[in-house]
Amino acid sequence: MARTQGSHSDITGPKIRAVALRLFAQHGYAAVSMRQIAKEVGVQAGALYNYIPDKQSLLVTLMETHMTDVLAAWTARLETLDDADVLHRLEAFTRFHIRFHMERPDAVFIAYMELRNLTPAHFTHIEALRSRYENGLRDILEEGVSAKAFQITDPKITTLAVIGMLNGVMTWYRSGGRLSLEEVETIYWDMVRKAVGA
Amino acid sequence: MARTQGSHSDITGPKIRAVALRLFAQHGYAAVSMRQIAKEVGVQAGALYNYIPDKQSLLVTLMETHMTDVLAAWTARLETLDDADVLHRLEAFTRFHIRFHMERPDAVFIAYMELRNLTPAHFTHIEALRSRYENGLRDILEEGVSAKAFQITDPKITTLAVIGMLNGVMTWYRSGGRLSLEEVETIYWDMVRKAVGA
Repeated sequence: MARTQGSHSDITGPKIRAVALRLFAQHGYAAVSMRQIAKEVGVQAGALYNYIPDKQSLLVTLMETHMTDVLAAWTARLETLDDADVLHRLEAFTRFHIRFHMERPDAVFIAYMELRNLTPAHFTHIEALRSRYENGLRDILEEGVSAKAFQITDPKITTLAVIGMLNGVMTWYRSGGRLSLEEVETIYWDMVRKAVGA
Repeated sequence: MARTQGSHSDITGPKIRAVALRLFAQHGYAAVSMRQIAKEVGVQAGALYNYIPDKQSLLVTLMETHMTDVLAAWTARLETLDDADVLHRLEAFTRFHIRFHMERPDAVFIAYMELRNLTPAHFTHIEALRSRYENGLRDILEEGVSAKAFQITDPKITTLAVIGMLNGVMTWYRSGGRLSLEEVETIYWDMVRKAVGA
């Protein structure tokens, strides 16, 4: 019995999250019902509650997964760079952030746009995860300032400004346009490097 | 009769738009019904249709108003700067963009986030207005490149990157924090100036 439930969960759980991600990104969290999610998954509305207690849990799970994924991926990338100087690490962050987020437009859209629909406790939780990720960039900037490699007035604001700039790529970049993503990364890296006074 | 209707429109029309703006920003366009808008305005649902043909028209009107407002405000600002050099105009744009958008968080949120809910014709219309505004910045950047005042690889991409960076302020700035908006503008201007190689 436990094994059977486990097997169902293994397939149905991820399917529910994938469907919810797509529907929330397309229509907005508030416009999507649990019934609609169940229909697209191909289960009865009541059966959904075997996997997830409510729509809010689904939302926070999607955001949490996105934030822990990006944190884990950046940590792994950073480990491959341990001998790299601070400029090289800033370049790695720039390229990593653009590439990682471009591959997950729905998750990124939800992670920013549905914050308004989180309960206060969930909001605090997600914002703490986001801060941890942003601190990865801030650490690089502060190290660059200490090493006199960067000229930055305010590392905290510069962190937010750089992330804002990089996030902008997602609003306009379409593959098949005049520039490859690699070329776009290189142009953004040139601007980030200059913006931090390196 | 015409005069009476006119008087009602003068009050009710703007009220409908203000309520729709707030509700769309709060819950998302797809989650808000015309009935809900009517209720908050204090009119019968049927009466709403005397002012606006449908919810889609309301959305495109809100976005169009936002884009024409920002275009008009920037044009007016630019006219006060006709003798200014290109660096001064870039600083003016940076400060203008942050200030104007910070004063209209709901309109900005909708202008970016509800593009997905526009009909294709409306999307084309709004994107054309946005391009006209972005071209105001692009003109400054291209002039700076011609004058050898800026070092920019790709003025089109730099335009989008600068606007992305500046838009980021809206996602994190709260008045009453450790920095005034003027101080934030100054930090961002320092980064923009460096990013364009000025």
